[in-house]
Amino acid sequence: MRLNDLSSHPSQWFGSGPSAEIVISSRVRLARNLAGFKFLSTCSNEDKLAISDLLREALLSIDVPQERSYYSVDTAAALDRDFMVERHLISRHLAHGSGPRGVVIAGQEAFTAMINEEDHLRLQVIKGGLQVQQCWHDISMIDDMLEEKVEYAFSPKYGYLTACPTNVGTGIRVSVMLHLPALKMTGQIEKFFNATRDMDLAVRGLFGEGTEAIGDFYQISNQVTLGLSEIAIVNDFTDTIVPKIVEYELAARNQLLAKEANVLNDKIYRALGILKSAYMISSQEALGLLSHLRMGVNMKRLEGVSIPKINELFLLTQPAHLQLNEGRALDATTRDELRAKILRQHLN
Amino acid sequence: MRLNDLSSHPSQWFGSGPSAEIVISSRVRLARNLAGFKFLSTCSNEDKLAISDLLREALLSIDVPQERSYYSVDTAAALDRDFMVERHLISRHLAHGSGPRGVVIAGQEAFTAMINEEDHLRLQVIKGGLQVQQCWHDISMIDDMLEEKVEYAFSPKYGYLTACPTNVGTGIRVSVMLHLPALKMTGQIEKFFNATRDMDLAVRGLFGEGTEAIGDFYQISNQVTLGLSEIAIVNDFTDTIVPKIVEYELAARNQLLAKEANVLNDKIYRALGILKSAYMISSQEALGLLSHLRMGVNMKRLEGVSIPKINELFLLTQPAHLQLNEGRALDATTRDELRAKILRQHLN
Repeated sequence: MRLNDLSSHPSQWFGSGPSAEIVISSRVRLARNLAGFKFLSTCSNEDKLAISDLLREALLSIDVPQERSYYSVDTAAALDRDFMVERHLISRHLAHGSGPRGVVIAGQEAFTAMINEEDHLRLQVIKGGLQVQQCWHDISMIDDMLEEKVEYAFSPKYGYLTACPTNVGTGIRVSVMLHLPALKMTGQIEKFFNATRDMDLAVRGLFGEGTEAIGDFYQISNQVTLGLSEIAIVNDFTDTIVPKIVEYELAARNQLLAKEANVLNDKIYRALGILKSAYMISSQEALGLLSHLRMGVNMKRLEGVSIPKINELFLLTQPAHLQLNEGRALDATTRDELRAKILRQHLN
Repeated sequence: MRLNDLSSHPSQWFGSGPSAEIVISSRVRLARNLAGFKFLSTCSNEDKLAISDLLREALLSIDVPQERSYYSVDTAAALDRDFMVERHLISRHLAHGSGPRGVVIAGQEAFTAMINEEDHLRLQVIKGGLQVQQCWHDISMIDDMLEEKVEYAFSPKYGYLTACPTNVGTGIRVSVMLHLPALKMTGQIEKFFNATRDMDLAVRGLFGEGTEAIGDFYQISNQVTLGLSEIAIVNDFTDTIVPKIVEYELAARNQLLAKEANVLNDKIYRALGILKSAYMISSQEALGLLSHLRMGVNMKRLEGVSIPKINELFLLTQPAHLQLNEGRALDATTRDELRAKILRQHLN
């Protein structure tokens, strides 16, 4: 599997599935470390190589249906690294780290395994819509298979040991990406932030830690990994957290429909008008406008544009996707021109 | 002639005529006062009524081809006053003044005569494009005819006496409205301001004194009225001032075409995209976007929209025109919705 084979279409997990009009995707990741090795901050490159060899071997040999490929991140081209970050296949931390490190990517991007990121292993399963339980089901199975091949650092008292204390215990992080344009438009996004604070959730943007909430996308994730079972965390997301926020967003959408139909139409149709007309457009602006378009289609205010098409454009217009599909690095102005051209072609 | 008969179409002088791709209109006005009356600041309402009667009588009886109507401004509805200001038939000063005052408007808006504005009489001729000499020809003839009917306050030493010393002498003000989007876009509008300063010109916005330069429209006018003949001032505009600024704007347009075609296309097509799509739009935003559209058509980057159509929309989307055409006063939100609807209807 070559990265270029991925870049021409969106990830399967992006924006389709149960409750996908608001829940873009669900993600579970597990942090694991190998017994008999130090944590990465004090590892030599030789240790890192040994860890990488062991984990790669294990990941490629477990009995799952998907083919798997290993990509060395330390030797990858800068554009390939950016692409993998954009596509949520690796973290910025892995992309910009040092020393031997890489990622195993399964077919259909069914799961990924980062090696030598913050922990020796970061296993991740993402699915479209609200599918936290399915993510947990899959990742738990992969984790069990791996545990038959390698020995994890585990304490009977604390659970899985991790480089950062915030991950000790289950090592689990559950995240859900939400699309909340109506809360933003109606000035009620504080309601969402208050709810996440009350529920002890972290909020990030579309591209994870440290990124802005562009395009009205908000990623929420649990902060506690110790003292709660994985199942409890997963069920909390599925039964309580996500339904509550979805309810807020739906109420805001209904409020717009009932009281401010023209404010809503204006946002939606201006977005379409600009996307169909611009000759230069930044990735941030494109994301924001596609976000309004997505809301418009989901609220049945706009016909002739499909959600899969919008999902596709969200990724195709990202800088590294653009460049990989074009087959070369492009300066910012050329990217803005190419992005606008692609949007015009797809939407006119 | 009813004001409503005017409101459904643009003024004939707006944006057509010689050099109209840059020179929107030319205007000459004369300030005159009647002998035997004080200046307005110390006039009683009885004096103002007497002045008004004298001037109205004279203006309606001179032998010009156009029909004329008198409109009392002090008794006019607020919306009618706003409409006349938008249409450049009267000044804000006359609209918001006090005491008996009014305006005589000739058919086809060929000329207007404000009575009891800052001076007893303010005579004005506006024509489309660069037609300063033609404006002067017409207004001079009307002025001569009036001088046979009434006696002007005139000093052999100073010339025509006016309420404000800046108008003493010829009482003439020559103004030209310019459309300078490329100078603005290329960041060279300072060149224009420097030139106007060197040539001792005043710069105002689309709606005269105290208004911002919205829509990249700039109105320039002479400041000196004493010691120069009318002909010298008129010729200076026609032969020197306007050609110089037109040259700057054309150079900026050529620079955009040669070096930044996509920046230009982006401005033009985004403007069209938004105007065709918006469901709410302010008059300021509409002006700015129509300005880019006008530039696009004049630079042959855009087909399917005509300059007369754009000229029409410049005026039809102004607040008082909108309301007069709708037959009632509208709140700001309703105006923004109606304006967007009109733009969609005309441009789709």
